[in-house]
Amino acid sequence: MAVARNIRRTNPITIVLACLLGIGFLIFIFSSQDASIPSLHVPGTRHILKSKDAASNPLSPPSLPFVKPNLKAGEVAPPPPVVHYHMNNVTTSNDPVANRESVLILTPLVRFYQEYWDNLLKLTYPHDLISLGFIIPRGREGNAVTAKLQEQIAKTQKDSNRDRFASITILRQENEPPLASQSEHDRHAMSAQKERRAALSRARNSLLFTTLGPTTSWVLWLDSDIVESPPSLIQDLAAHDKAIVVPNCYQRYYNKEKGQSEVRAYDFNSWVDSPTAQQLAAKMGPDDIVLEGYGEMATYRPLMAYMAEIPNGDPKKTVQLDGVGGTALLVKAEVHRDGAMFPPFAFYHLIETEGFAKMARRLGYTPFGLPNYFVYHYNE
Amino acid sequence: MAVARNIRRTNPITIVLACLLGIGFLIFIFSSQDASIPSLHVPGTRHILKSKDAASNPLSPPSLPFVKPNLKAGEVAPPPPVVHYHMNNVTTSNDPVANRESVLILTPLVRFYQEYWDNLLKLTYPHDLISLGFIIPRGREGNAVTAKLQEQIAKTQKDSNRDRFASITILRQENEPPLASQSEHDRHAMSAQKERRAALSRARNSLLFTTLGPTTSWVLWLDSDIVESPPSLIQDLAAHDKAIVVPNCYQRYYNKEKGQSEVRAYDFNSWVDSPTAQQLAAKMGPDDIVLEGYGEMATYRPLMAYMAEIPNGDPKKTVQLDGVGGTALLVKAEVHRDGAMFPPFAFYHLIETEGFAKMARRLGYTPFGLPNYFVYHYNE
Repeated sequence: MAVARNIRRTNPITIVLACLLGIGFLIFIFSSQDASIPSLHVPGTRHILKSKDAASNPLSPPSLPFVKPNLKAGEVAPPPPVVHYHMNNVTTSNDPVANRESVLILTPLVRFYQEYWDNLLKLTYPHDLISLGFIIPRGREGNAVTAKLQEQIAKTQKDSNRDRFASITILRQENEPPLASQSEHDRHAMSAQKERRAALSRARNSLLFTTLGPTTSWVLWLDSDIVESPPSLIQDLAAHDKAIVVPNCYQRYYNKEKGQSEVRAYDFNSWVDSPTAQQLAAKMGPDDIVLEGYGEMATYRPLMAYMAEIPNGDPKKTVQLDGVGGTALLVKAEVHRDGAMFPPFAFYHLIETEGFAKMARRLGYTPFGLPNYFVYHYNE
Repeated sequence: MAVARNIRRTNPITIVLACLLGIGFLIFIFSSQDASIPSLHVPGTRHILKSKDAASNPLSPPSLPFVKPNLKAGEVAPPPPVVHYHMNNVTTSNDPVANRESVLILTPLVRFYQEYWDNLLKLTYPHDLISLGFIIPRGREGNAVTAKLQEQIAKTQKDSNRDRFASITILRQENEPPLASQSEHDRHAMSAQKERRAALSRARNSLLFTTLGPTTSWVLWLDSDIVESPPSLIQDLAAHDKAIVVPNCYQRYYNKEKGQSEVRAYDFNSWVDSPTAQQLAAKMGPDDIVLEGYGEMATYRPLMAYMAEIPNGDPKKTVQLDGVGGTALLVKAEVHRDGAMFPPFAFYHLIETEGFAKMARRLGYTPFGLPNYFVYHYNE
């Protein structure tokens, strides 16, 4: 039925178009004999991309930097029937700029903050090595966020902007409970956490599975409500050469008593495991999860949030972690490629980024945290 | 609904095409008198891909079909700063041909069998909707396999072949214990199974995370040693409209006693869970796995391999499964996008494709098997 309907509806147009094209070609062939349009034989070697080459053909994945093919007039870009990637040449080193390593910045975009976008623009990591990927919820709020994002992108990605990013991919979420409609208070209610973080996990996974390409070296997870982060964020995190590294996520607020602006811990998902948490988990049902930062579930886990030595701690200090938060999180792409994702279900009684850390552990990787290196969360 | 969707989908493209053609013609007509090279302004609408469009710009992912941009002489392809994918328009239905659904066929390529390749070529699913992805081990054997594959691809993907595949991606594995150097006997030794299947899981995950694109509707896992499969394989499996569907993997052999060719069960990883297997798992250490098909570990699981009704079983019969094999396995892309991968570690005491089935279950999906629909494994 559907087939028949399709054919019936499109056929006349297709035929007309085909005829027009056909006539056009005939005219072109007969009229261009006197015009000397150069045609160039393209050697076969151009068909195969080296892993770090810029995208120059239509099969390149969205994570590749884009360089306009430098074709002569009349030259047709060679068809790329095969793209051969040597995964071994995709390095992840402590000097990613020198090694021209591609970074994929992934953001589940719930709200659009200008500061977040401005910080992306200020990143000193070469923008031609940065691809951005966003996943935005469906519905009215998502539409508004998409519009704001596209407005900014239109400015940033102009042909004339030499500092534009390699590529930007926007995904609109499939049918899901919306992430956007919750206030900070609602979002943190313990009862809502599991459902909310399961939905967020699925969003992260969709974004990750869809945008990770063969040439991606690093994935930087950066939440849309991180409104303050250092321009050297990528280099600073990558310099530790760890499979997974997470900065400390704080929040600025106005201390009414003292009458001054101060900082406080915000993200409690970066932690070292504790016997108490293990015992809590052991008594739980298979679908229950241990949550951090709630008085009614004291885990006595050492939290990175409280390991900060303010104001004079060494920003390069690292601590080994068992759980990580995802507000800002640098991951070597090989960790994801091996299979580490964000479990939307209870995985060792952990979910989302904390479950991801556990999964990475099961894959043989160790997460590290930087207690004295800060990014700041928006204060609602 | 279907009508509305049809209209929404075909209208803008048709209009854009018509406009482009119209404008092109006007310019062509006015400029071709003096045989100067026409230059065409490309409207902004071409920058945004509809989810099912063919790849026409350099940022398209490797899973998109490739159509050479129909540029006039001297015209430069427009830069594509943003690619916007509406995930909701990527359907997975029981009539994927009519709905133009993209299929990604993924194969960990250990050995190259001509029959495997020939069966790909014989697939009746439209080849312009099929992308192929291979991951090949490093080293000498892998090099030989790659050479054979590329030889075939060179023939298949010729410009002149209208039946070529949308795209082909070949990944060479990172440093890993080689999968290739094991004979059938070694490979099946129980002691070697866990390590072997963990390595295979990582290979599958690398391939999956790297090649899955925003427009992929289905992923067909097809092992390189499946030497006999029906040309209508994709349609037949997709017709069941299940999140995960697995045919029965058998093997042809020569029965010396009877002096004739017969078939026997080959893949024992598609099963229904049993209390015995559950009890086995409950007594295991956290890293131990339950394996199927070994006398020394009797699970008493009902195996799909033994549910076949030969020769007259209904090929459309389905059974609900708890574990699945991966020699041939059709998965809706949304299952993977939600996070289902092949655990290289013990996941509920399961690994690789069996662990994948469990993970899909945890994500809310149910695997099904077709006990009377067969594919055949090479007989070493």
